[in-house]
Amino acid sequence: MAALVMEIISEQFCFGGTQGVYRHDSAETGTPMRFSVFQPASASNKPLPVLWYLSGLTCTEENFTVKAGAQRYAAEHGVVLVAPDTSPRGADIAGEDDSYDFGSGAGFYVDATVSPWGRNYRMYSYITAELPELVFANFAVDPKRQGITGHSMGGHGALTIGLKHPDIYTSVSAFAPICAPMQCPWGEKALSGYLGADRSAWEQYDAVSLIRKGAKSGEILVDQGDADDFLTEQLRPELLAEAAHEAGQKLTLRMQPGYDHSYYFVASFIGDHIAFHAARLAA
Amino acid sequence: MAALVMEIISEQFCFGGTQGVYRHDSAETGTPMRFSVFQPASASNKPLPVLWYLSGLTCTEENFTVKAGAQRYAAEHGVVLVAPDTSPRGADIAGEDDSYDFGSGAGFYVDATVSPWGRNYRMYSYITAELPELVFANFAVDPKRQGITGHSMGGHGALTIGLKHPDIYTSVSAFAPICAPMQCPWGEKALSGYLGADRSAWEQYDAVSLIRKGAKSGEILVDQGDADDFLTEQLRPELLAEAAHEAGQKLTLRMQPGYDHSYYFVASFIGDHIAFHAARLAA
Repeated sequence: MAALVMEIISEQFCFGGTQGVYRHDSAETGTPMRFSVFQPASASNKPLPVLWYLSGLTCTEENFTVKAGAQRYAAEHGVVLVAPDTSPRGADIAGEDDSYDFGSGAGFYVDATVSPWGRNYRMYSYITAELPELVFANFAVDPKRQGITGHSMGGHGALTIGLKHPDIYTSVSAFAPICAPMQCPWGEKALSGYLGADRSAWEQYDAVSLIRKGAKSGEILVDQGDADDFLTEQLRPELLAEAAHEAGQKLTLRMQPGYDHSYYFVASFIGDHIAFHAARLAA
Repeated sequence: MAALVMEIISEQFCFGGTQGVYRHDSAETGTPMRFSVFQPASASNKPLPVLWYLSGLTCTEENFTVKAGAQRYAAEHGVVLVAPDTSPRGADIAGEDDSYDFGSGAGFYVDATVSPWGRNYRMYSYITAELPELVFANFAVDPKRQGITGHSMGGHGALTIGLKHPDIYTSVSAFAPICAPMQCPWGEKALSGYLGADRSAWEQYDAVSLIRKGAKSGEILVDQGDADDFLTEQLRPELLAEAAHEAGQKLTLRMQPGYDHSYYFVASFIGDHIAFHAARLAA
Protein backbone atom coordinates (compact mmCIF):
# COMPACT_ATOMS: atom_id res chain seq x y z
CA MET A 1 0.00 0.00 0.00
CA ALA A 2 1.24 3.44 -0.91
CA ALA A 3 2.14 5.93 1.74
CA LEU A 4 -0.19 8.89 1.97
CA VAL A 5 2.60 11.37 2.49
CA MET A 6 3.64 14.10 0.11
CA GLU A 7 6.14 16.92 -0.02
CA ILE A 8 5.25 20.52 -0.75
CA ILE A 9 7.33 21.89 -3.64
CA SER A 10 5.61 25.28 -3.63
CA GLU A 11 2.41 26.96 -2.54
CA GLN A 12 1.44 30.38 -3.90
CA PHE A 13 -1.56 32.65 -3.55
CA CYS A 14 -3.67 32.82 -6.70
CA PHE A 15 -7.19 34.26 -7.13
CA GLY A 16 -7.69 34.20 -3.40
CA GLY A 17 -6.82 30.50 -3.17
CA THR A 18 -3.64 28.44 -3.16
CA GLN A 19 -1.81 27.04 -6.17
CA GLY A 20 0.44 24.27 -4.98
CA VAL A 21 2.90 21.82 -6.51
CA TYR A 22 3.57 18.58 -4.64
CA ARG A 23 5.75 15.49 -4.91
CA HIS A 24 5.32 11.98 -3.56
CA ASP A 25 6.78 8.52 -4.03
CA SER A 26 4.40 6.56 -6.19
CA ALA A 27 4.05 2.82 -5.61
CA GLU A 28 2.37 2.43 -9.02
CA THR A 29 5.15 4.04 -11.05
CA GLY A 30 8.02 3.26 -8.70
CA THR A 31 9.22 6.84 -9.10
CA PRO A 32 8.69 10.21 -7.45
CA MET A 33 5.68 11.92 -9.09
CA ARG A 34 4.65 15.56 -9.13
CA PHE A 35 1.17 17.03 -9.37
CA SER A 36 -0.42 20.43 -8.91
CA VAL A 37 -3.50 21.32 -6.87
CA PHE A 38 -5.45 24.57 -6.89
CA GLN A 39 -7.55 25.08 -3.78
CA PRO A 40 -10.08 27.92 -3.83
CA ALA A 41 -10.27 30.06 -0.72
CA SER A 42 -13.37 28.21 0.47
CA ALA A 43 -11.48 24.91 0.57
CA SER A 44 -10.60 25.48 4.18
CA ASN A 45 -14.23 25.34 5.24
CA LYS A 46 -15.82 22.30 3.61
CA PRO A 47 -14.90 19.53 1.16
CA LEU A 48 -15.22 20.80 -2.40
CA PRO A 49 -15.79 19.07 -5.72
CA VAL A 50 -12.63 18.14 -7.60
CA LEU A 51 -11.88 18.35 -11.32
CA TRP A 52 -9.04 16.16 -12.59
CA TYR A 53 -7.18 17.61 -15.57
CA LEU A 54 -5.06 15.20 -17.62
CA SER A 55 -2.43 16.79 -19.86
CA GLY A 56 -1.20 15.93 -23.32
CA LEU A 57 2.00 14.64 -24.89
CA THR A 58 5.27 16.18 -23.60
CA CYS A 59 3.50 17.99 -20.74
CA THR A 60 4.24 17.88 -17.04
CA GLU A 61 1.90 19.12 -14.31
CA GLU A 62 3.20 22.61 -15.07
CA ASN A 63 1.79 23.40 -18.53
CA PHE A 64 -1.86 23.49 -17.54
CA THR A 65 -1.08 25.09 -14.21
CA VAL A 66 0.72 28.13 -15.63
CA LYS A 67 -0.89 28.47 -19.08
CA ALA A 68 -4.60 27.66 -18.92
CA GLY A 69 -5.78 30.45 -16.61
CA ALA A 70 -8.10 27.91 -14.99
CA GLN A 71 -7.68 29.15 -11.43
CA ARG A 72 -9.95 32.14 -11.97
CA TYR A 73 -12.89 29.94 -12.92
CA ALA A 74 -12.15 27.31 -10.26
CA ALA A 75 -12.14 30.09 -7.66
CA GLU A 76 -15.45 31.43 -8.98
CA HIS A 77 -17.13 28.03 -8.94
CA GLY A 78 -15.48 26.61 -5.83
CA VAL A 79 -13.85 23.64 -7.54
CA VAL A 80 -10.48 22.07 -6.64
CA LEU A 81 -8.25 21.43 -9.68
CA VAL A 82 -5.71 18.60 -9.76
CA ALA A 83 -3.22 18.31 -12.63
CA PRO A 84 -0.96 15.23 -12.55
CA ASP A 85 2.17 14.60 -14.58
CA THR A 86 1.75 12.54 -17.77
CA SER A 87 4.19 9.69 -17.11
CA PRO A 88 6.82 8.39 -14.72
CA ARG A 89 10.07 10.39 -14.90
CA GLY A 90 13.49 8.85 -14.50
CA ALA A 91 12.36 5.23 -14.53
CA ASP A 92 15.73 4.53 -16.12
CA ILE A 93 14.37 2.44 -18.99
CA ALA A 94 16.47 2.34 -22.18
CA GLY A 95 14.84 4.57 -24.80
CA GLU A 96 12.26 6.18 -22.52
CA ASP A 97 13.38 9.69 -23.50
CA ASP A 98 13.83 9.02 -27.23
CA SER A 99 10.35 9.98 -28.51
CA TYR A 100 7.94 12.80 -27.72
CA ASP A 101 5.03 10.40 -28.18
CA PHE A 102 6.18 7.33 -26.22
CA GLY A 103 7.82 6.91 -22.82
CA SER A 104 8.51 10.02 -20.74
CA GLY A 105 5.73 12.57 -21.12
CA ALA A 106 3.56 10.07 -22.97
CA GLY A 107 2.12 7.58 -20.50
CA PHE A 108 -1.20 7.49 -22.36
CA TYR A 109 -3.10 6.72 -19.13
CA VAL A 110 -2.72 2.95 -19.51
CA ASP A 111 -1.24 0.22 -17.32
CA ALA A 112 1.55 -1.17 -19.50
CA THR A 113 1.85 -4.94 -19.67
CA VAL A 114 4.86 -5.26 -21.96
CA SER A 115 8.44 -5.42 -20.69
CA PRO A 116 10.30 -3.17 -19.89
CA TRP A 117 7.35 -0.73 -19.46
CA GLY A 118 5.09 -2.81 -17.23
CA ARG A 119 6.81 -2.04 -13.94
CA ASN A 120 6.64 1.78 -14.12
CA TYR A 121 4.18 2.87 -16.80
CA ARG A 122 1.04 2.38 -14.74
CA MET A 123 -0.63 5.76 -15.26
CA TYR A 124 -4.13 4.28 -15.40
CA SER A 125 -3.92 2.90 -11.86
CA TYR A 126 -1.98 5.95 -10.73
CA ILE A 127 -4.69 8.36 -11.92
CA THR A 128 -7.72 6.30 -10.91
CA ALA A 129 -6.57 4.92 -7.56
CA GLU A 130 -3.25 5.95 -6.05
CA LEU A 131 -3.35 9.70 -6.66
CA PRO A 132 -7.02 10.12 -5.61
CA GLU A 133 -6.27 8.32 -2.35
CA LEU A 134 -3.36 10.69 -1.71
CA VAL A 135 -5.41 13.77 -2.63
CA PHE A 136 -8.37 12.77 -0.48
CA ALA A 137 -6.03 12.23 2.47
CA ASN A 138 -4.36 15.61 2.13
CA PHE A 139 -6.94 18.08 0.75
CA ALA A 140 -10.51 19.07 1.59
CA VAL A 141 -12.04 17.32 -1.41
CA ASP A 142 -15.36 15.48 -1.63
CA PRO A 143 -14.84 12.02 -3.25
CA LYS A 144 -18.52 11.92 -4.13
CA ARG A 145 -18.17 14.93 -6.43
CA GLN A 146 -15.49 14.25 -9.05
CA GLY A 147 -15.23 15.34 -12.67
CA ILE A 148 -12.51 14.64 -15.22
CA THR A 149 -11.20 16.51 -18.25
CA GLY A 150 -8.02 16.73 -20.28
CA HIS A 151 -6.32 17.85 -23.47
CA SER A 152 -5.23 15.75 -26.46
CA MET A 153 -3.67 12.57 -24.98
CA GLY A 154 -5.19 13.76 -21.71
CA GLY A 155 -8.56 14.15 -23.41
CA HIS A 156 -8.26 10.49 -24.36
CA GLY A 157 -7.44 9.74 -20.73
CA ALA A 158 -10.44 11.72 -19.46
CA LEU A 159 -12.88 10.10 -21.90
CA THR A 160 -11.74 6.53 -21.30
CA ILE A 161 -11.46 6.85 -17.52
CA GLY A 162 -14.77 8.69 -17.32
CA LEU A 163 -16.55 6.11 -19.49
CA LYS A 164 -15.18 3.21 -17.44
CA HIS A 165 -16.10 4.77 -14.08
CA PRO A 166 -19.36 6.70 -14.41
CA ASP A 167 -19.98 5.93 -10.73
CA ILE A 168 -16.85 7.89 -9.76
CA TYR A 169 -16.68 10.68 -12.37
CA THR A 170 -20.03 12.44 -12.50
CA SER A 171 -18.94 14.77 -15.28
CA VAL A 172 -16.61 14.22 -18.26
CA SER A 173 -15.22 16.63 -20.83
CA ALA A 174 -12.23 16.97 -23.13
CA PHE A 175 -10.26 19.43 -25.24
CA ALA A 176 -9.17 18.15 -28.64
CA PRO A 177 -9.02 14.54 -27.40
CA ILE A 178 -7.46 11.59 -29.18
CA CYS A 179 -10.87 10.01 -29.68
CA ALA A 180 -9.91 6.66 -31.15
CA PRO A 181 -6.32 5.70 -30.31
CA MET A 182 -6.79 2.33 -32.04
CA GLN A 183 -7.32 4.24 -35.29
CA CYS A 184 -4.52 6.83 -35.29
CA PRO A 185 -0.70 6.78 -35.41
CA TRP A 186 -0.13 8.20 -31.91
CA GLY A 187 -2.48 5.66 -30.38
CA GLU A 188 -1.27 2.68 -32.37
CA LYS A 189 2.33 3.40 -31.39
CA ALA A 190 1.50 3.82 -27.71
CA LEU A 191 -0.94 0.95 -27.33
CA SER A 192 1.23 -1.53 -29.18
CA GLY A 193 4.30 -0.38 -27.26
CA TYR A 194 2.69 -0.55 -23.82
CA LEU A 195 0.23 -3.43 -24.36
CA GLY A 196 1.63 -5.59 -27.16
CA ALA A 197 0.27 -6.63 -30.55
CA ASP A 198 -3.06 -8.11 -29.44
CA ARG A 199 -5.53 -5.35 -30.28
CA SER A 200 -8.25 -6.78 -28.06
CA ALA A 201 -6.17 -5.63 -25.10
CA TRP A 202 -6.32 -2.07 -26.43
CA GLU A 203 -10.10 -1.71 -26.44
CA GLN A 204 -10.42 -0.75 -22.78
CA TYR A 205 -8.26 2.32 -23.57
CA ASP A 206 -10.17 3.54 -26.63
CA ALA A 207 -13.17 5.82 -26.08
CA VAL A 208 -14.84 4.90 -29.37
CA SER A 209 -14.45 1.20 -28.68
CA LEU A 210 -15.71 1.58 -25.10
CA ILE A 211 -18.84 3.42 -26.27
CA ARG A 212 -19.49 0.84 -28.99
CA LYS A 213 -19.25 -1.90 -26.34
CA GLY A 214 -21.79 -0.22 -24.08
CA ALA A 215 -19.82 2.00 -21.70
CA LYS A 216 -21.82 5.10 -20.87
CA SER A 217 -21.29 8.38 -19.09
CA GLY A 218 -23.57 11.34 -18.51
CA GLU A 219 -23.47 14.11 -21.12
CA ILE A 220 -19.91 14.55 -22.43
CA LEU A 221 -18.61 17.97 -23.55
CA VAL A 222 -15.84 18.12 -26.17
CA ASP A 223 -14.30 21.23 -27.72
CA GLN A 224 -12.18 20.91 -30.85
CA GLY A 225 -10.47 23.63 -32.89
CA ASP A 226 -10.98 23.34 -36.62
CA ALA A 227 -7.48 24.76 -37.33
CA ASP A 228 -5.86 22.01 -35.23
CA ASP A 229 -2.98 20.43 -37.17
CA PHE A 230 -3.72 17.02 -35.62
CA LEU A 231 -7.45 17.02 -36.29
CA THR A 232 -7.84 14.63 -39.19
CA GLU A 233 -4.98 12.20 -38.66
CA GLN A 234 -4.72 11.88 -34.87
CA LEU A 235 -7.80 13.24 -33.08
CA ARG A 236 -10.74 12.14 -35.28
CA PRO A 237 -13.71 13.53 -33.34
CA GLU A 238 -16.02 12.33 -36.12
CA LEU A 239 -15.47 8.75 -34.92
CA LEU A 240 -16.49 9.75 -31.41
CA ALA A 241 -19.58 11.57 -32.68
CA GLU A 242 -20.61 8.58 -34.78
CA ALA A 243 -20.14 6.07 -31.96
CA ALA A 244 -21.95 8.29 -29.47
CA HIS A 245 -24.85 8.82 -31.85
CA GLU A 246 -25.25 5.11 -32.52
CA ALA A 247 -24.95 4.12 -28.86
CA GLY A 248 -27.15 6.88 -27.48
CA GLN A 249 -24.27 8.46 -25.53
CA LYS A 250 -25.10 12.13 -25.05
CA LEU A 251 -22.26 14.19 -26.53
CA THR A 252 -21.87 17.91 -27.15
CA LEU A 253 -19.07 18.27 -29.69
CA ARG A 254 -18.29 21.90 -30.43
CA MET A 255 -16.07 22.61 -33.43
CA GLN A 256 -14.41 25.95 -32.68
CA PRO A 257 -13.54 27.89 -35.83
CA GLY A 258 -9.95 29.11 -36.13
CA TYR A 259 -8.54 27.49 -32.98
CA ASP A 260 -5.43 25.31 -33.02
CA HIS A 261 -4.10 22.64 -30.61
CA SER A 262 -2.34 25.02 -28.19
CA TYR A 263 -3.02 26.21 -24.66
CA TYR A 264 -4.51 29.41 -26.14
CA PHE A 265 -7.32 27.11 -27.26
CA VAL A 266 -7.60 25.44 -23.84
CA ALA A 267 -7.51 28.83 -22.09
CA SER A 268 -10.28 30.15 -24.30
CA PHE A 269 -12.72 27.40 -23.30
CA ILE A 270 -11.59 26.17 -19.86
CA GLY A 271 -14.12 28.53 -18.30
CA ASP A 272 -16.97 26.79 -20.14
CA HIS A 273 -15.67 23.40 -19.06
CA ILE A 274 -15.30 24.33 -15.40
CA ALA A 275 -18.84 25.75 -15.46
CA PHE A 276 -20.04 22.51 -17.08
CA HIS A 277 -18.44 20.38 -14.37
CA ALA A 278 -19.43 22.70 -11.51
CA ALA A 279 -23.09 22.54 -12.56
CA ARG A 280 -23.03 18.74 -12.58
CA LEU A 281 -21.05 18.46 -9.35
CA ALA A 282 -23.40 20.89 -7.59
CA ALA A 283 -20.39 23.04 -6.80
CA MET B 1 14.28 56.33 -39.65
CA ALA B 2 13.26 52.83 -38.75
CA ALA B 3 11.50 50.64 -41.25
CA LEU B 4 7.88 49.93 -40.44
CA VAL B 5 8.08 46.31 -41.47
CA MET B 6 7.77 43.31 -39.21
CA GLU B 7 7.75 39.55 -39.54
CA ILE B 8 5.03 37.32 -38.16
CA ILE B 9 6.47 34.62 -35.89
CA SER B 10 3.08 33.15 -35.00
CA GLU B 11 -0.59 34.07 -34.88
CA GLN B 12 -3.07 31.96 -32.93
CA PHE B 13 -6.75 32.22 -32.10
CA CYS B 14 -7.40 33.09 -28.46
CA PHE B 15 -10.67 34.21 -26.84
CA GLY B 16 -12.12 35.01 -30.25
CA GLY B 17 -9.17 37.26 -31.13
CA THR B 18 -5.61 36.78 -32.32
CA GLN B 19 -2.52 36.31 -30.17
CA GLY B 20 0.50 37.10 -32.29
CA VAL B 21 4.27 37.20 -31.85
CA TYR B 22 6.27 39.43 -34.19
CA ARG B 23 9.87 40.33 -34.93
CA HIS B 24 11.43 43.42 -36.48
CA ASP B 25 14.82 45.04 -36.87
CA SER B 26 15.05 47.82 -34.32
CA ALA B 27 17.04 50.92 -35.19
CA GLU B 28 17.15 51.92 -31.51
CA THR B 29 18.65 48.68 -30.23
CA GLY B 30 20.48 47.68 -33.41
CA THR B 31 19.14 44.16 -32.97
CA PRO B 32 16.10 42.13 -33.99
CA MET B 33 13.37 42.60 -31.36
CA ARG B 34 10.30 40.50 -30.59
CA PHE B 35 6.99 41.61 -29.18
CA SER B 36 3.54 40.11 -28.75
CA VAL B 37 0.18 41.65 -29.67
CA PHE B 38 -3.27 40.44 -28.68
CA GLN B 39 -6.01 41.79 -30.94
CA PRO B 40 -9.61 41.25 -29.80
CA ALA B 41 -12.05 40.11 -32.47
CA SER B 42 -13.38 43.63 -32.87
CA ALA B 43 -9.96 44.92 -33.90
CA SER B 44 -10.78 44.33 -37.52
CA ASN B 45 -13.58 46.90 -37.45
CA LYS B 46 -12.25 50.04 -35.79
CA PRO B 47 -9.08 51.27 -34.06
CA LEU B 48 -9.06 50.11 -30.44
CA PRO B 49 -7.35 51.41 -27.31
CA VAL B 50 -3.97 49.86 -26.59
CA LEU B 51 -2.45 48.78 -23.27
CA TRP B 52 1.33 48.47 -23.16
CA TYR B 53 2.60 45.84 -20.73
CA LEU B 54 6.26 46.06 -19.69
CA SER B 55 7.75 42.92 -18.17
CA GLY B 56 10.21 42.38 -15.36
CA LEU B 57 13.77 41.13 -14.98
CA THR B 58 14.68 38.01 -17.01
CA CYS B 59 11.41 38.10 -18.98
CA THR B 60 10.89 38.11 -22.72
CA GLU B 61 7.64 38.98 -24.46
CA GLU B 62 6.52 35.43 -23.75
CA ASN B 63 6.06 35.35 -19.96
CA PHE B 64 3.13 37.75 -19.79
CA THR B 65 1.66 36.41 -23.01
CA VAL B 66 1.39 32.79 -21.84
CA LYS B 67 1.07 33.17 -18.07
CA ALA B 68 -1.06 36.20 -17.20
CA GLY B 69 -4.38 35.12 -18.71
CA ALA B 70 -4.86 38.72 -19.83
CA GLN B 71 -6.44 37.92 -23.20
CA ARG B 72 -9.79 37.06 -21.66
CA TYR B 73 -10.15 40.51 -20.15
CA ALA B 74 -8.73 42.31 -23.18
CA ALA B 75 -11.29 40.50 -25.33
CA GLU B 76 -14.10 41.47 -22.94
CA HIS B 77 -13.11 45.13 -22.86
CA GLY B 78 -11.95 45.50 -26.47
CA VAL B 79 -8.39 46.50 -25.66
CA VAL B 80 -5.29 45.62 -27.69
CA LEU B 81 -2.37 44.31 -25.56
CA VAL B 82 1.26 44.81 -26.57
CA ALA B 83 4.05 43.09 -24.62
CA PRO B 84 7.61 43.98 -25.73
CA ASP B 85 10.82 42.21 -24.81
CA THR B 86 12.81 43.67 -21.89
CA SER B 87 16.17 44.34 -23.57
CA PRO B 88 18.13 43.89 -26.77
CA ARG B 89 19.19 40.28 -27.35
CA GLY B 90 22.47 39.27 -28.91
CA ALA B 91 24.01 42.73 -28.95
CA ASP B 92 27.30 40.91 -28.53
CA ILE B 93 28.56 43.04 -25.65
CA ALA B 94 31.03 41.39 -23.28
CA GLY B 95 29.26 40.46 -20.04
CA GLU B 96 25.72 41.17 -21.26
CA ASP B 97 24.53 37.68 -20.26
CA ASP B 98 26.40 37.47 -16.95
CA SER B 99 23.73 38.85 -14.57
CA TYR B 100 19.99 38.36 -14.29
CA ASP B 101 19.61 42.00 -13.25
CA PHE B 102 21.80 43.81 -15.80
CA GLY B 103 22.22 43.45 -19.57
CA SER B 104 20.08 40.88 -21.38
CA GLY B 105 16.58 40.72 -19.91
CA ALA B 106 17.24 43.79 -17.78
CA GLY B 107 17.10 46.88 -19.99
CA PHE B 108 15.35 48.87 -17.23
CA TYR B 109 13.54 51.05 -19.81
CA VAL B 110 16.36 53.60 -19.99
CA ASP B 111 18.50 54.98 -22.82
CA ALA B 112 22.01 53.97 -21.75
CA THR B 113 24.70 56.61 -22.09
CA VAL B 114 27.71 54.66 -20.86
CA SER B 115 29.95 52.61 -23.15
CA PRO B 116 29.57 49.82 -24.21
CA TRP B 117 25.81 49.90 -23.47
CA GLY B 118 24.88 53.19 -25.14
CA ARG B 119 24.61 51.88 -28.68
CA ASN B 120 22.09 49.09 -28.03
CA TYR B 121 20.46 49.54 -24.63
CA ARG B 122 17.94 52.16 -25.70
CA MET B 123 14.75 50.63 -24.33
CA TYR B 124 13.27 53.99 -23.32
CA SER B 125 13.25 55.29 -26.89
CA TYR B 126 12.32 51.87 -28.19
CA ILE B 127 9.22 51.65 -25.98
CA THR B 128 8.11 55.28 -26.26
CA ALA B 129 8.81 55.96 -29.93
CA GLU B 130 10.02 53.22 -32.25
CA LEU B 131 7.72 50.38 -31.21
CA PRO B 132 4.57 52.54 -31.06
CA GLU B 133 5.26 53.79 -34.58
CA LEU B 134 5.58 50.20 -35.79
CA VAL B 135 2.45 49.07 -33.94
CA PHE B 136 0.36 51.99 -35.22
CA ALA B 137 1.47 51.23 -38.78
CA ASN B 138 0.56 47.55 -38.56
CA PHE B 139 -2.42 47.19 -36.21
CA ALA B 140 -5.84 48.82 -35.83
CA VAL B 141 -4.88 50.80 -32.73
CA ASP B 142 -5.96 54.31 -31.73
CA PRO B 143 -2.88 56.41 -30.76
CA LYS B 144 -5.15 58.75 -28.81
CA ARG B 145 -6.15 55.99 -26.41
CA GLN B 146 -3.03 54.48 -24.80
CA GLY B 147 -2.48 53.07 -21.34
CA ILE B 148 0.66 51.57 -19.81
CA THR B 149 1.28 48.97 -17.12
CA GLY B 150 3.98 46.52 -16.12
CA HIS B 151 5.41 44.21 -13.49
CA SER B 152 8.43 44.76 -11.21
CA MET B 153 11.14 46.33 -13.43
CA GLY B 154 8.33 46.78 -15.95
CA GLY B 155 6.20 48.47 -13.30
CA HIS B 156 9.06 50.93 -12.88
CA GLY B 157 9.03 51.39 -16.65
CA ALA B 158 5.27 51.97 -16.75
CA LEU B 159 5.33 54.47 -13.88
CA THR B 160 8.24 56.52 -15.20
CA ILE B 161 7.11 56.51 -18.82
CA GLY B 162 3.52 57.29 -17.82
CA LEU B 163 4.59 60.13 -15.52
CA LYS B 164 6.81 61.67 -18.20
CA HIS B 165 4.15 61.46 -20.92
CA PRO B 166 0.70 62.08 -19.43
CA ASP B 167 -0.34 63.47 -22.81
CA ILE B 168 0.31 60.08 -24.44
CA TYR B 169 -0.58 57.57 -21.71
CA THR B 170 -4.03 58.38 -20.37
CA SER B 171 -3.93 55.59 -17.81
CA VAL B 172 -1.05 54.18 -15.76
CA SER B 173 -0.85 51.18 -13.46
CA ALA B 174 1.72 48.73 -12.15
CA PHE B 175 2.15 45.35 -10.45
CA ALA B 176 4.77 45.23 -7.71
CA PRO B 177 6.82 48.01 -9.33
CA ILE B 178 10.35 49.02 -8.44
CA CYS B 179 9.12 52.37 -7.12
CA ALA B 180 12.39 54.12 -6.40
CA PRO B 181 15.29 52.62 -8.37
CA MET B 182 17.65 55.28 -6.97
CA GLN B 183 17.01 53.80 -3.52
CA CYS B 184 17.31 50.04 -4.06
CA PRO B 185 20.07 47.61 -5.09
CA TRP B 186 18.52 46.55 -8.42
CA GLY B 187 18.05 50.17 -9.46
CA GLU B 188 21.40 51.43 -8.29
CA LYS B 189 23.18 48.67 -10.19
CA ALA B 190 21.22 49.30 -13.38
CA LEU B 191 21.23 53.09 -13.34
CA SER B 192 24.93 53.37 -12.52
CA GLY B 193 25.77 50.75 -15.12
CA TYR B 194 23.71 52.28 -17.91
CA LEU B 195 24.00 55.99 -17.00
CA GLY B 196 27.21 56.40 -15.01
CA ALA B 197 27.95 57.67 -11.51
CA ASP B 198 26.21 61.07 -11.74
CA ARG B 199 22.95 60.47 -9.88
CA SER B 200 21.30 63.56 -11.32
CA ALA B 201 21.13 61.68 -14.63
CA TRP B 202 19.13 58.93 -12.92
CA GLU B 203 16.25 61.10 -11.74
CA GLN B 204 14.30 60.99 -15.00
CA TYR B 205 14.09 57.21 -14.55
CA ASP B 206 12.87 57.16 -10.94
CA ALA B 207 9.13 57.43 -10.32
CA VAL B 208 9.52 58.82 -6.81
CA SER B 209 11.98 61.44 -7.99
CA LEU B 210 9.78 62.38 -10.96
CA ILE B 211 6.74 62.87 -8.71
CA ARG B 212 8.76 64.91 -6.24
CA LYS B 213 9.90 67.15 -9.13
CA GLY B 214 6.35 67.77 -10.31
CA ALA B 215 5.59 65.11 -12.92
CA LYS B 216 1.94 64.14 -12.74
CA SER B 217 -0.33 61.51 -14.24
CA GLY B 218 -4.02 60.81 -13.75
CA GLU B 219 -4.94 58.34 -11.02
CA ILE B 220 -2.34 55.58 -10.78
CA LEU B 221 -3.28 52.03 -9.72
CA VAL B 222 -0.64 49.83 -8.05
CA ASP B 223 -1.10 46.31 -6.70
CA GLN B 224 1.53 44.84 -4.39
CA GLY B 225 1.58 41.43 -2.67
CA ASP B 226 2.53 41.56 0.99
CA ALA B 227 4.29 38.16 0.78
CA ASP B 228 6.57 39.44 -2.01
CA ASP B 229 10.19 38.55 -1.21
CA PHE B 230 11.41 41.77 -2.83
CA LEU B 231 8.99 44.11 -1.09
CA THR B 232 11.13 45.84 1.51
CA GLU B 233 14.54 45.88 -0.13
CA GLN B 234 13.80 46.40 -3.84
CA LEU B 235 10.23 47.55 -4.45
CA ARG B 236 9.52 50.02 -1.63
CA PRO B 237 5.96 51.11 -2.40
CA GLU B 238 5.93 53.20 0.79
CA LEU B 239 8.26 55.67 -0.91
CA LEU B 240 5.85 55.99 -3.83
CA ALA B 241 2.89 56.46 -1.51
CA GLU B 242 4.71 59.14 0.47
CA ALA B 243 5.81 61.06 -2.64
CA ALA B 244 2.36 60.82 -4.21
CA HIS B 245 0.70 62.03 -1.03
CA GLU B 246 3.01 65.01 -0.69
CA ALA B 247 2.76 65.98 -4.37
CA GLY B 248 -0.98 65.47 -4.70
CA GLN B 249 -0.55 62.65 -7.22
CA LYS B 250 -3.64 60.46 -7.00
CA LEU B 251 -2.53 56.89 -6.23
CA THR B 252 -4.46 53.76 -5.34
CA LEU B 253 -1.96 51.39 -3.73
CA ARG B 254 -3.52 48.07 -2.85
CA MET B 255 -1.54 45.76 -0.58
CA GLN B 256 -2.74 42.25 -1.42
CA PRO B 257 -2.44 39.87 1.52
CA GLY B 258 -0.60 36.61 0.87
CA TYR B 259 0.49 37.28 -2.71
CA ASP B 260 4.09 36.91 -3.85
CA HIS B 261 6.02 38.34 -6.84
CA SER B 262 5.00 35.69 -9.40
CA TYR B 263 2.69 35.62 -12.40
CA TYR B 264 0.04 34.01 -10.19
CA PHE B 265 -0.13 37.43 -8.55
CA VAL B 266 -0.27 39.26 -11.89
CA ALA B 267 -2.91 36.83 -13.20
CA SER B 268 -5.05 37.37 -10.11
CA PHE B 269 -5.30 41.14 -10.65
CA ILE B 270 -4.73 41.73 -14.38
CA GLY B 271 -8.51 41.74 -14.83
CA ASP B 272 -8.83 44.68 -12.44
CA HIS B 273 -6.05 46.54 -14.24
CA ILE B 274 -7.49 46.02 -17.71
CA ALA B 275 -10.88 47.21 -16.44
CA PHE B 276 -9.15 50.26 -14.90
CA HIS B 277 -7.46 51.14 -18.19
CA ALA B 278 -10.51 50.35 -20.33
CA ALA B 279 -12.66 52.70 -18.27
CA ARG B 280 -10.17 55.54 -18.70
CA LEU B 281 -9.57 54.85 -22.38
CA ALA B 282 -13.31 54.72 -23.07
CA ALA B 283 -12.82 51.23 -24.47
